[in-house]
Amino acid sequence: MNNITMKMNADEAILSALREDITSEDITTNSVMPEYRLGEVDLICKQDGILAGLDVFKRVFELLDPATKVIFFAKDGDEVKAGQKLAVVHGDIRVLLSGERTALNYLQRMSGIATYTRSIAKLLEGTKTKLLDTRKTTPNMRIFEKYAVRVGGGYNHRYNLSDGVLLKDNHINAAGGVKEAIAMAKAYAPFVRKIEVEVEDLDMLKDALEAGADIIMLDNMTVEDMKEAVRLTAGKAETECSGNVTRENVARLVDIGVDYISSGALTHSSPILDLSLKNLHAI
Amino acid sequence: MNNITMKMNADEAILSALREDITSEDITTNSVMPEYRLGEVDLICKQDGILAGLDVFKRVFELLDPATKVIFFAKDGDEVKAGQKLAVVHGDIRVLLSGERTALNYLQRMSGIATYTRSIAKLLEGTKTKLLDTRKTTPNMRIFEKYAVRVGGGYNHRYNLSDGVLLKDNHINAAGGVKEAIAMAKAYAPFVRKIEVEVEDLDMLKDALEAGADIIMLDNMTVEDMKEAVRLTAGKAETECSGNVTRENVARLVDIGVDYISSGALTHSSPILDLSLKNLHAI
Amino acid sequence: MNNITMKMNADEAILSALREDITSEDITTNSVMPEYRLGEVDLICKQDGILAGLDVFKRVFELLDPATKVIFFAKDGDEVKAGQKLAVVHGDIRVLLSGERTALNYLQRMSGIATYTRSIAKLLEGTKTKLLDTRKTTPNMRIFEKYAVRVGGGYNHRYNLSDGVLLKDNHINAAGGVKEAIAMAKAYAPFVRKIEVEVEDLDMLKDALEAGADIIMLDNMTVEDMKEAVRLTAGKAETECSGNVTRENVARLVDIGVDYISSGALTHSSPILDLSLKNLHAI
Amino acid sequence: MNNITMKMNADEAILSALREDITSEDITTNSVMPEYRLGEVDLICKQDGILAGLDVFKRVFELLDPATKVIFFAKDGDEVKAGQKLAVVHGDIRVLLSGERTALNYLQRMSGIATYTRSIAKLLEGTKTKLLDTRKTTPNMRIFEKYAVRVGGGYNHRYNLSDGVLLKDNHINAAGGVKEAIAMAKAYAPFVRKIEVEVEDLDMLKDALEAGADIIMLDNMTVEDMKEAVRLTAGKAETECSGNVTRENVARLVDIGVDYISSGALTHSSPILDLSLKNLHAI
Amino acid sequence: MNNITMKMNADEAILSALREDITSEDITTNSVMPEYRLGEVDLICKQDGILAGLDVFKRVFELLDPATKVIFFAKDGDEVKAGQKLAVVHGDIRVLLSGERTALNYLQRMSGIATYTRSIAKLLEGTKTKLLDTRKTTPNMRIFEKYAVRVGGGYNHRYNLSDGVLLKDNHINAAGGVKEAIAMAKAYAPFVRKIEVEVEDLDMLKDALEAGADIIMLDNMTVEDMKEAVRLTAGKAETECSGNVTRENVARLVDIGVDYISSGALTHSSPILDLSLKNLHAI
Amino acid sequence: MNNITMKMNADEAILSALREDITSEDITTNSVMPEYRLGEVDLICKQDGILAGLDVFKRVFELLDPATKVIFFAKDGDEVKAGQKLAVVHGDIRVLLSGERTALNYLQRMSGIATYTRSIAKLLEGTKTKLLDTRKTTPNMRIFEKYAVRVGGGYNHRYNLSDGVLLKDNHINAAGGVKEAIAMAKAYAPFVRKIEVEVEDLDMLKDALEAGADIIMLDNMTVEDMKEAVRLTAGKAETECSGNVTRENVARLVDIGVDYISSGALTHSSPILDLSLKNLHAI
Repeated sequence: MNNITMKMNADEAILSALREDITSEDITTNSVMPEYRLGEVDLICKQDGILAGLDVFKRVFELLDPATKVIFFAKDGDEVKAGQKLAVVHGDIRVLLSGERTALNYLQRMSGIATYTRSIAKLLEGTKTKLLDTRKTTPNMRIFEKYAVRVGGGYNHRYNLSDGVLLKDNHINAAGGVKEAIAMAKAYAPFVRKIEVEVEDLDMLKDALEAGADIIMLDNMTVEDMKEAVRLTAGKAETECSGNVTRENVARLVDIGVDYISSGALTHSSPILDLSLKNLHAI
Repeated sequence: MNNITMKMNADEAILSALREDITSEDITTNSVMPEYRLGEVDLICKQDGILAGLDVFKRVFELLDPATKVIFFAKDGDEVKAGQKLAVVHGDIRVLLSGERTALNYLQRMSGIATYTRSIAKLLEGTKTKLLDTRKTTPNMRIFEKYAVRVGGGYNHRYNLSDGVLLKDNHINAAGGVKEAIAMAKAYAPFVRKIEVEVEDLDMLKDALEAGADIIMLDNMTVEDMKEAVRLTAGKAETECSGNVTRENVARLVDIGVDYISSGALTHSSPILDLSLKNLHAI
Repeated sequence: MNNITMKMNADEAILSALREDITSEDITTNSVMPEYRLGEVDLICKQDGILAGLDVFKRVFELLDPATKVIFFAKDGDEVKAGQKLAVVHGDIRVLLSGERTALNYLQRMSGIATYTRSIAKLLEGTKTKLLDTRKTTPNMRIFEKYAVRVGGGYNHRYNLSDGVLLKDNHINAAGGVKEAIAMAKAYAPFVRKIEVEVEDLDMLKDALEAGADIIMLDNMTVEDMKEAVRLTAGKAETECSGNVTRENVARLVDIGVDYISSGALTHSSPILDLSLKNLHAI
Repeated sequence: MNNITMKMNADEAILSALREDITSEDITTNSVMPEYRLGEVDLICKQDGILAGLDVFKRVFELLDPATKVIFFAKDGDEVKAGQKLAVVHGDIRVLLSGERTALNYLQRMSGIATYTRSIAKLLEGTKTKLLDTRKTTPNMRIFEKYAVRVGGGYNHRYNLSDGVLLKDNHINAAGGVKEAIAMAKAYAPFVRKIEVEVEDLDMLKDALEAGADIIMLDNMTVEDMKEAVRLTAGKAETECSGNVTRENVARLVDIGVDYISSGALTHSSPILDLSLKNLHAI
Repeated sequence: MNNITMKMNADEAILSALREDITSEDITTNSVMPEYRLGEVDLICKQDGILAGLDVFKRVFELLDPATKVIFFAKDGDEVKAGQKLAVVHGDIRVLLSGERTALNYLQRMSGIATYTRSIAKLLEGTKTKLLDTRKTTPNMRIFEKYAVRVGGGYNHRYNLSDGVLLKDNHINAAGGVKEAIAMAKAYAPFVRKIEVEVEDLDMLKDALEAGADIIMLDNMTVEDMKEAVRLTAGKAETECSGNVTRENVARLVDIGVDYISSGALTHSSPILDLSLKNLHAI
Repeated sequence: MNNITMKMNADEAILSALREDITSEDITTNSVMPEYRLGEVDLICKQDGILAGLDVFKRVFELLDPATKVIFFAKDGDEVKAGQKLAVVHGDIRVLLSGERTALNYLQRMSGIATYTRSIAKLLEGTKTKLLDTRKTTPNMRIFEKYAVRVGGGYNHRYNLSDGVLLKDNHINAAGGVKEAIAMAKAYAPFVRKIEVEVEDLDMLKDALEAGADIIMLDNMTVEDMKEAVRLTAGKAETECSGNVTRENVARLVDIGVDYISSGALTHSSPILDLSLKNLHAI
């Protein structure tokens, strides 16, 4: 995660998470460590997986104390193994103790998402189909979760409601039809944004193509219909297949030939990657 | 979730989540629905589970437009079934569309946690042992996730670093021993707070009991040692057993007789409960 | 401006503007009006132009006191004439006095932008060319200024750095060439976003077309070159012409046949539209 | 703009402006520049005028990355010429690119105000009359715009509703007359603040003088009446002349002999001063 | 405290105070009152004094729940007696319990200040001398404390560093003398603001008068010197006497004839007025 | 106050206090000191007492300018004497002047609380009874005031409503009795938190002991009854005595043998400790 994104879009969330955990003071640490003491602690991997979020992990400690240093032995995107030493955090032991949980809560979740994303992305290797995330992210975690998807080898769908047009059934109904909806979107936002439209059958697909949709989301269609849809589209638009995609059920979609498969599970149901801080000692 | 908690501790997070999703405007909705139109949409369950977070779900829409009404056909803690209609949301269709994703992101995650918690809590029924959560929550989601644990039949461990003393190995080392650490904590925070201490073997346990710990966390001990620890403690303190507890591995801990079992998985690795908004229509 | 945009994206800015003007209290009003007194004041147009921002004008008063009512006799986009009565604001006279300046500061600026935009947009009527704004907006005013451009008959370029890709000379240099830059952008953000690239001559244009750019910005090119560029592009991409476009100099660009002309002056140099509150009286 | 003002009153606005422009990430820059690269870019003047806001310009980059350095070849208040090189910005090229627009949006607007202010202030040179700004500033830009007025040779009227008493017609009506209004203001705020009152004719002026007003604003009076007003006032109060003052129409007011002329146009209708960043290169 | 001041300047502080007291939830109340229950509680005076802050008291409950009603039997500025019933608060009992402490913390402190202020102001009755507060207020309490001073019969000195010029010894030294300092202040801020200058002896006083100071603060001068200073000033400026003024030592200053006496003790050392909520009952 | 508490919980309050004092700029300082000038000023004690808040004092200046240095000649908890030089502040003279009042407002109030606390704590020396504060703190000052109590030799009661259970008469009534209330609290919050209950007579005390309360607050009981209560409790719970405790009236409570005496006066009615900045000079 680059520094500008961190300062502009992540710092406030991280500070707020730290303040969620320290509303007055860390009583335990303040009880036993009244004074500054320099120390180190190791970041250890306890489970095989893909690492994501090291900069966020480090930023948690820096926001508590800018003097904290983190030396990394791995980087985002690396496949790491249980037992592997990933980093050393160096600073005031009180900072190491008070920041530990928040730092791990970010890193474990982000690495869990990267790990799960990679496991599905691998199943798509060798095809033209790319794996996308969705807006089914944890509230106030989107910047972190969408980044983790990219680290895992996935791609990002629109970031939010403001930066992409996606006409769903309700929008289409409100507009009076697929063509009308696309026309209205083009009239309102003619520039910069691609128009994506969700279709449920081949007739809607034909309307969407005719009206000049940029991307067509095939929603709840059979595998056969989706294949036919890809054939009919013939490159005139991009195609996306969506709906409860998980590692377990993605196989059936691999041969359809869509440009994108999107999966909410990447961000809403990935288990964490187990990591811990070990071997804290004064130096 | 009661109204005071909502206003004091949840509203800001919910608003921030909405602003994460709408940084300038909902372009799609604004394209096709330039005007106010009254409508309704149903909240439908797509998976069996335990419901948690209905007030948060409702609050998302209210924060977009206080005139939005939600009629509930179920309440937090209910066991719900796939296909069940849980609520109707009534208001400006643009509000229903723009708030949908954020409302579901909260409700699905909270209900997922309640569902998973209930599944473990059931395994402890009939014993004296209670199920606890941890601080391994998603950043900026603690108020929601800890509430969901309670709805699922679990109990809350300390909320954060400021409202409970938990002396772990590093604190003990810093203090120079179990007894010293407990003494320092009692000197610093003699009032209101129970002192919990983490012990790794029976010797440490004895020290902790002697020094007057209120709660003893048995960390990484064998089942036999834990049984012996409970016997030695003999009610002089409460006991908690901790460490990678999941639905799959909790059985072995049921007969030990500890007062509490804590599980980070409740909040860091529960899959969501699948829910959706269906049948939006103007009225 | 719809209610959701107002609540999510405008309210905080408006409140902050009110607090900029009232850091402790409105001393003058509090000196002479210690008590609530119901009154009305008229919003009067003092200059011909296009109105934009009535909802923002109203919101200023509502944020001071939700009981304030505004009755409008005109709507955003209307051509209004000097002397015309546009609205009546009804409420506590202290609210009318304390909110007056902030409400007018918004409305005058937004209407000024709509007025200036309309005057250029009219010159493009009958052609295929649409008028676009830029990111040259006043800091912390973008949501208001981009809305005013639309009201005036212009269209919005990307909202910000996060919702559109625009490869300028520096990006192209960093990437090593037009084709490389486009390829990198497609690799990083393959989905949802159109790729726009700025070209300075016809060779760069050809590279951009070959690499599959969605939009091509013709930068500092002669009218002849731009015409040739449009011919070469032949609908394979959209074309945008940019660079110090004002009401005075837009004429030369009308016949080129580009899809878009963008003008920073719309938001950075429009004079305000003069409006005032008159005839305040108790009722 | 001094450092304390910057930290206390400008930083939050600047950060908010940056976040307006970067809601998730700068996609374009992140596409083509995945890594840190040191570079420089020149700030070039494209139009003759008065410079104001260099510290703000610099602060934008520092808030993105404190390691950014700016070397200035001019200072606030300088008369600069088209083509002149004003500064070099030195830092991570990604920072230079992501901060460019926001930095220029501030600097161009502030310099535009200083330039326009200077052009009117010059017309008052050699007289006792000083040029004042008003509260007709762009929302959330007051601290920047009032500073720019001073740089341009103008002076500041009250900063906001909380730091100055200005009794206008509505206040006078509410109080029951000029004398009553002044008496109430003196009773409410007897200390530190001067009492300014707006008068529309010579009778009101006499009342104001008798009641001990500190400053008298001559509102919509003929040039002859204003001259008479100045004569009658005879130094017993300060006099201000107000109302749609622009560069074009200020001449008629020069000989009246008032202490102050205030002009809303300084802040609400100054065109920007054109500036740009050029010649970005890695070093 | 009027509604505009409340919304613009007090609400944020009050909300922040409530969040200081409720960081996750009111555990006690939530334990015993899981459901809404309507109730009432009386506000009782436990000590004689002057009441100030009733609107703030009420606002605390409204911010927790807008449905809460408060009926007042007294108003700000009233002399109240121990045992007197001042108000009834009516609403959800949980709101009454959770808001009690914060509401009383504000009201007790504000009433304490009003009470102490009144006790000194009374000693000045019959003289021309007015009692002023200072900037020695409790951090983040200024808007409340300065209001309470006014309720108690005192007047406000400048609100903060931004709305008044007060040249102290250090400013005078930096400028090179009293006259130079006054000249610089007049050059920098010629309009709206009175210039106050602190003098330590009669020579400085003469310089200040000559340079046209509006207000002269007599600092650490003997009673005799102050009398002479008032005589020399002869109405050409206002005079203020300052320095550790308390109820116990103000008497010696009463006959000097200064326009103002300022006392930091009003806001930094007033004891609270004892008040409590009693007789809570369901209805 | 340690650095983590400062960054997480104090910084925002301090910044907000500085912004309360500087809403646009420090006009006086900016008038006479347009340029950076290095200087020093001494912190002098003007009254005997206990010092508390030196880190907060220093932090005020650092937040204005991180380059400011403070050299301390005393530390929190020290008994200081009138005339003693406590610190030297070194930095830009404008920072020293603009930060002076806010820095002293914190330090004087915190030291006042420590001084008053120490004076009561001394009266309890040699007994087992400890002195506690309450939640009767100044709004938005709790983190500072509770720290000052500890510096003065007192101990902290619960921090806020979220981190301690205290069942008062209203909670007991709502629950239907002492035993029921305790049972409900144990059911809701079985872990980590001690249950405190307020009793008014010996019958309630017996119920509380039977129900397993951890702490019993003796409210408005006679000295004889309190002695009997301590005897009956016999170490089965901790005891706290509360109610308008001041330095003047604490003596009668010393021999009762309760574990804790709590006093709201520590934070709501301590007079400040007089301190000042003297001898500012350029270096």
